[in-house]
Amino acid sequence: MLERIGGPEDLKKLTPEETKALAAEIRQELIRTVARNGGHLASNLGVVELTLALHRVFDFSKDKIVFDVGHQSYVHKMVTGRYKDFATLRQHGGLSGFPKRKESPFDCFETGHASTSISAALGMARARDFRGEEHQCIALIGDGALTGGMCYEALNDAGNSNTRMVVILNDNEMSIAPNVGALSLRLTNLRVSSEWQNAKSAMHRFRQIPLVGKPIYRIAHAGKTLAKTALVKGDSIGFFETLGFEYFGPIDGHNIEGLEKTLRKARNFDGPCVIHVKTKKGYGYDKAEERPDIFHGTPPFLVETGDRAEIPEGPSSGHIMATTLAEMAEKDDRIVTITAAMPLGTGLDHFAEKFPKRMLDVGIAEEHAATMAAGLAAGGMRPYYAVYASFFQRCYDQMIHDVAMQRLPVVFLLDRSGVGGEDGQTHHGLFDFAEVLPVPEMTVLAPCDARELTRMIRWTGGDHGPVVIRYARGGSDVPGRKDGPFTPGRWERLRAGKDAAILAVGTMVRQGLKTAALLAERGIQAAVINCSSLKPLDENCMRSLQGIPTFTLEEHMKNGGFGEYLSRWCLDRGLEPPRTVFAVDDMFPQHGSHVLLMKDVGLDPDSIRDRILCDLRGSRNGR
Amino acid sequence: MLERIGGPEDLKKLTPEETKALAAEIRQELIRTVARNGGHLASNLGVVELTLALHRVFDFSKDKIVFDVGHQSYVHKMVTGRYKDFATLRQHGGLSGFPKRKESPFDCFETGHASTSISAALGMARARDFRGEEHQCIALIGDGALTGGMCYEALNDAGNSNTRMVVILNDNEMSIAPNVGALSLRLTNLRVSSEWQNAKSAMHRFRQIPLVGKPIYRIAHAGKTLAKTALVKGDSIGFFETLGFEYFGPIDGHNIEGLEKTLRKARNFDGPCVIHVKTKKGYGYDKAEERPDIFHGTPPFLVETGDRAEIPEGPSSGHIMATTLAEMAEKDDRIVTITAAMPLGTGLDHFAEKFPKRMLDVGIAEEHAATMAAGLAAGGMRPYYAVYASFFQRCYDQMIHDVAMQRLPVVFLLDRSGVGGEDGQTHHGLFDFAEVLPVPEMTVLAPCDARELTRMIRWTGGDHGPVVIRYARGGSDVPGRKDGPFTPGRWERLRAGKDAAILAVGTMVRQGLKTAALLAERGIQAAVINCSSLKPLDENCMRSLQGIPTFTLEEHMKNGGFGEYLSRWCLDRGLEPPRTVFAVDDMFPQHGSHVLLMKDVGLDPDSIRDRILCDLRGSRNGR
Repeated sequence: MLERIGGPEDLKKLTPEETKALAAEIRQELIRTVARNGGHLASNLGVVELTLALHRVFDFSKDKIVFDVGHQSYVHKMVTGRYKDFATLRQHGGLSGFPKRKESPFDCFETGHASTSISAALGMARARDFRGEEHQCIALIGDGALTGGMCYEALNDAGNSNTRMVVILNDNEMSIAPNVGALSLRLTNLRVSSEWQNAKSAMHRFRQIPLVGKPIYRIAHAGKTLAKTALVKGDSIGFFETLGFEYFGPIDGHNIEGLEKTLRKARNFDGPCVIHVKTKKGYGYDKAEERPDIFHGTPPFLVETGDRAEIPEGPSSGHIMATTLAEMAEKDDRIVTITAAMPLGTGLDHFAEKFPKRMLDVGIAEEHAATMAAGLAAGGMRPYYAVYASFFQRCYDQMIHDVAMQRLPVVFLLDRSGVGGEDGQTHHGLFDFAEVLPVPEMTVLAPCDARELTRMIRWTGGDHGPVVIRYARGGSDVPGRKDGPFTPGRWERLRAGKDAAILAVGTMVRQGLKTAALLAERGIQAAVINCSSLKPLDENCMRSLQGIPTFTLEEHMKNGGFGEYLSRWCLDRGLEPPRTVFAVDDMFPQHGSHVLLMKDVGLDPDSIRDRILCDLRGSRNGR
Repeated sequence: MLERIGGPEDLKKLTPEETKALAAEIRQELIRTVARNGGHLASNLGVVELTLALHRVFDFSKDKIVFDVGHQSYVHKMVTGRYKDFATLRQHGGLSGFPKRKESPFDCFETGHASTSISAALGMARARDFRGEEHQCIALIGDGALTGGMCYEALNDAGNSNTRMVVILNDNEMSIAPNVGALSLRLTNLRVSSEWQNAKSAMHRFRQIPLVGKPIYRIAHAGKTLAKTALVKGDSIGFFETLGFEYFGPIDGHNIEGLEKTLRKARNFDGPCVIHVKTKKGYGYDKAEERPDIFHGTPPFLVETGDRAEIPEGPSSGHIMATTLAEMAEKDDRIVTITAAMPLGTGLDHFAEKFPKRMLDVGIAEEHAATMAAGLAAGGMRPYYAVYASFFQRCYDQMIHDVAMQRLPVVFLLDRSGVGGEDGQTHHGLFDFAEVLPVPEMTVLAPCDARELTRMIRWTGGDHGPVVIRYARGGSDVPGRKDGPFTPGRWERLRAGKDAAILAVGTMVRQGLKTAALLAERGIQAAVINCSSLKPLDENCMRSLQGIPTFTLEEHMKNGGFGEYLSRWCLDRGLEPPRTVFAVDDMFPQHGSHVLLMKDVGLDPDSIRDRILCDLRGSRNGR
């Protein structure tokens, strides 16, 4: 049947029974494709009926819908003319796993980071009113994303300006526990987001340790409270109603006819309204219903068993970071860790296994996390805030204003930095050096592998101001490195060579070694330097390289990055600046495998070798 | 009596009558000092009794207090051993107008931007619990600052973790109107912040225009709703109580004995609690009580009459920007402006005079403002978001993720950029180029004066992607400039010279001309170029300067700034990079007059001349 759905107008012609049959077919297609390509499964299985109902009630050639975070837009893609390309999902050159305006006029606004949808839909609703148009504007948001402060800023603005719009609260049926302290007694409809569900089993274990267990269990729930309050319809004033929103629901998110009835009411409602929809993550695939946590974002898997493809790498950087911190925390009571709703993604669950009370999860609240870390540091603690590089962008001001200006010993652990992969554009970590290098008092480090990450973290046990350590998800250890403690401002020469010197940062050290091997095949002996300390830089090393053409390698934007920074620094000292800066040159990389994306941006060893050879030839010719 | 208050312990010895007398004396001192030095008056007059009561009940040698925004900390400074230095308030080398850890152990956490205090106090409270200490941790926050989303992230985290702390809500008695739509009917205690009060009289004017007036009046109130909901104690669940906070109040903020009684209760309360205090801005000085808006932050004034010192400059950049936009908006229905609670500071009040419906005030909510702007643009409008450069740091991720990635035609108007003045550290705008230059799709402009700002804004009437225009508060027009429309990627030579070329950005163009005049006295003929287009740069101009030593001038951090960016760009094109980059070199400037601060950072014409002379001598000697 799916093949005959050329667009939403075809959905409207279906009978209720046909629609249900289509939902079943869509589920099979979701499971098949994600099993092959990897991607977000459980959240999409949860919104099949909701998406179909939306398209049957609204006309998204005129009406607008913004998918918060956006990973739940697969069904929407299938029914808006993209079914024929669905097999290319998340592949290089194929469909994105997130809404993309270039893909379809039905994707009216792009998302990736949480909590933006209400602001965006409100902006579009206001544009509609200014232009005298009539269409409806919808934000579809999960209960997890609702913990971000931006949502409250937007609800507030929408509610008080009385702008006609619809917020659909997609409330996943994932209640953790019936009773989590006094608050839950007052709250009905306790629900939590998929991210959080990931930590469920670990948390239950902590609970069984008497006395010690309970506080962490409660602290760990912190991030969910606002979402919970949003779900409360109090005796007199519901949360949304206080903000000026009309409230519809809660309604069953898997009953298409019921959904359509309520959506029709909302379509014509003259003001801001919220529809509270209860859905079940993973609905319709037993493996995902049982473990929506691991089927939230998943690598390829076997449909029959649910077994997931093994990730060949060893333990992740985050795992190693957390293990190292846990060792240090045995002796140093001041160490405490912080996450913004990503205990598993950041690896901090491994820290919490040993020190449940000293892992603070604040919810999707990166801004608050940074300032709260500053408060902890001002109070004598040593906070470590682990966050994905691209989400670190959310606490830029707090990093400067609350941490660096007071020179507080907060350590920012930036995971998933550099060019990402299948998640694409919104998830690359390409701006972080530009964020932190200009900031006074900041030490900026980037390990080339997990062993160096471990040493850097051990170094943070001493006295220091604010520190940023930037690393990628994982990768094998770089060969040829010496043992010994880490020292800021000191680079390591991993390979000797007098024809050229490759100055590489982080993951690019491995690429640099590969490039040097390729250059050696052409008779060029290139030194490879691991520039793991960006601020301070290594002046002695740089002086020792005078007379040799140097090339910098980094997985970062060129503008504002390491190579640009080093260039001006060299010029100020009368040193020869790098010949060429290899970095992402003023473009947003798309999605696909890391290997293909690195080729796209010219950061694969072959491209680097060719450019270096060309540069060296140019200089021999007296350029 | 004030002279005998060496520290808070002396306050505790006073009788209630003596305390009242001291309050009166403090008010006189506040008025006298701010009349002479300028500063924040109304907010400090409003918290005299509250501050005294806090110091009499708590022991801030152990207890901690965080002042949100921090401009209401003058009384606190006077009674914590800094009375003898109070005459130096906000002066170069003198006391800061904001809490500073270096000044006193009683300033435990520094502030300047809004909405950070609850996060910081929660961090300190958790540190206390980890360390087994007993002291209390307090956040003192106004109702305006409570509109920031960060506050909700923090309240949520604090309430659910049940951490012992006190939030004091300083609710200024500044109700705008008894009835602002349906919401206010449900809400008691309608209060608004000082920022907003600034727009009061203008808004009342709009209201009198029938039909057109009301919607803007309601839209303009948007930012205050959350604060209002926070003040509601509903029949069953108050807002704070829902979040897990015990609620005390509302209490009279000018009755010391009543305050002390409630503060004592809060001091010993075993969990998070909020004290709702009603105060009157400007209390005790009739001029400030009548016009708390103009006495919020004020230049020097005459105590007897309240007359303020004239600012010698002409209309501010913001005024000119708003007037230009209003002219364009006559013909272009798509133009809409946005502010995050700063209609007067940004000058957008002048736009709203003509187009009240097309000026959207979203409250202290910079993040939401940026994404809402993206939504407006996606909906076909042309949004202009005016924001101070230092507060723009709050929407860094939204600028990248929601605006630039979708190449939406949002124009960011960054006011108050560069080295600020008496407000000091937290209010300088020194990171904005570093924020935006690395971002693909972004056009980055910086006018040298108001005439150029006008031309740039007119240019934005055409087709373009996201644009950043960065300017300072004001200043006279730069002489020697040609008429004609603005063209990105084209620089203007304001002065000829073949010995050196000064490449100056924004306000530094004036400094560059002064420097060139000083150099001419020494026989050096320096060209001066107005580099008002940073992205794109002007390749033709740069090529025309080959063979002449160049020097860049900018009011920005050196790392990540214009000179560094231009340097690498030159190297990539085989051009000679700038000899020296004049910028703020990896330090946070303090407070004081702009002239003195510029000397501190080496950006005054004398220092620049000396350094250029030295560099030119070096190059003549074959360096």
